[in-house]
Amino acid sequence: MSEETVATKVVDKMYNNDWFSQWLGIERVLVEPGKSILRMKIRKEMLNGFAIAHGGITYSLADSALAFASNSHGRMAVSIETSISHTQSLREGDEIIAEAEEISCTEKIGVYYITIKKVSGEKVALFKGTVYRTSKNWDV
Amino acid sequence: MSEETVATKVVDKMYNNDWFSQWLGIERVLVEPGKSILRMKIRKEMLNGFAIAHGGITYSLADSALAFASNSHGRMAVSIETSISHTQSLREGDEIIAEAEEISCTEKIGVYYITIKKVSGEKVALFKGTVYRTSKNWDV
Amino acid sequence: MSEETVATKVVDKMYNNDWFSQWLGIERVLVEPGKSILRMKIRKEMLNGFAIAHGGITYSLADSALAFASNSHGRMAVSIETSISHTQSLREGDEIIAEAEEISCTEKIGVYYITIKKVSGEKVALFKGTVYRTSKNWDV
Amino acid sequence: MSEETVATKVVDKMYNNDWFSQWLGIERVLVEPGKSILRMKIRKEMLNGFAIAHGGITYSLADSALAFASNSHGRMAVSIETSISHTQSLREGDEIIAEAEEISCTEKIGVYYITIKKVSGEKVALFKGTVYRTSKNWDV
Repeated sequence: MSEETVATKVVDKMYNNDWFSQWLGIERVLVEPGKSILRMKIRKEMLNGFAIAHGGITYSLADSALAFASNSHGRMAVSIETSISHTQSLREGDEIIAEAEEISCTEKIGVYYITIKKVSGEKVALFKGTVYRTSKNWDV
Repeated sequence: MSEETVATKVVDKMYNNDWFSQWLGIERVLVEPGKSILRMKIRKEMLNGFAIAHGGITYSLADSALAFASNSHGRMAVSIETSISHTQSLREGDEIIAEAEEISCTEKIGVYYITIKKVSGEKVALFKGTVYRTSKNWDV
Repeated sequence: MSEETVATKVVDKMYNNDWFSQWLGIERVLVEPGKSILRMKIRKEMLNGFAIAHGGITYSLADSALAFASNSHGRMAVSIETSISHTQSLREGDEIIAEAEEISCTEKIGVYYITIKKVSGEKVALFKGTVYRTSKNWDV
Repeated sequence: MSEETVATKVVDKMYNNDWFSQWLGIERVLVEPGKSILRMKIRKEMLNGFAIAHGGITYSLADSALAFASNSHGRMAVSIETSISHTQSLREGDEIIAEAEEISCTEKIGVYYITIKKVSGEKVALFKGTVYRTSKNWDV
């Protein structure tokens, strides 16, 4: 199986049982080894008391992008430390895109930057994620 | 108005319009100036493809605890940088508690630790949040 | 050998070859399994262009405290992700203390909070560190 | 004065009084508004007990790059939260380069990524820094 096929099959399997990513309405724009691009739309039930998207919404999108990108090599990977800076607010109806990029991937540890933008290109949040790569492979 | 009353009124106002915290089923256990304790239960639609709570769920609970604790002094505060380490997995039905503690609060910047535990006491995630304290007051 | 003896011997071995910690003038106040308290004094060559301690100085003290605390169990541990918030400035002559506390320690991953204070008790920086625990033991 | 001249003059002023950056042997490769590239060499007194560069060394280089890039617009900026992932070890004699890139810069808050590489191109550490932009200007 090619690396691309492994990536697609692993993320299909992850996504199909990921109820929360589905509740968020996450769409997969691209999945490749070490890479993922996701898209979603801000709905009313995602807002906080300032009438802007709750910080947990952009975090969750980025965290899904991290999970997909870091598992796409076929090895199970689990998040151990993540951080996010919120630089712009989001309103109901805004569409956002998260792009995960693999910055470093050694035997045990992977580091990813995930940039979250509006479809207009404006950055809204910056996420860094570190994962531990287990010795277990996905059965795909 | 006492500091305690300000804290309660601000958080009431925040919570009543916070659709996402309500979707999460967040209950307020305690709100005091610079402090908050929240509680919620993991539901099926909060799980990811590993059948454990999506990282965004514990993050969101902690982020709400940060928002309530940091706004409780009556000044509007916005999150600028947060990080979380996930140390234990959560299953459907698990009940968790987030406790926000103010570590530092200067004129412009506040720093908070939020510890997320199971009701049994086991730590499941560790969150650090930094907020920018605006010059605008809550109208309560 | 008792756990306390292992901790002391490992940190002795680490410290005796740690040229940078020695340049910093770090003194060990306490070393126990999963715990360390260190002390140092700000010298002129540690200042930045604002005439306050360079951010790297408090980071370095905290990073040494992390290394000592996380290796004290006798297993080699390496830092994989650390973060620090600087909440107060330090001047030449200030004496500071870093206290490392083990928040979580599983088979592979350890998480530590390190609080840096002036000897007067004022917090000056807050550090969170995550380490990967290798399968290699210290030979002590 | 052009923006480029402001950047150069501010960083000259910062660097000339920055004893610790000078002790580290930091050289400025490039300074532009919102950007900086720095270079240094690992010396024996920068090693820790594993005979590799102490984590505080790469952090310090990145923190200087952050300070120079974020102050280069002429407004005084102070670090409020920084994080670093160490992905490769460094030995005595290794030469490293830190490149600071401005990811977001609003009225009050700036976010920067700093990548630290060996001169051979291998990434050794990834740093994210958030600064608070004061209302005070550099007098240059």
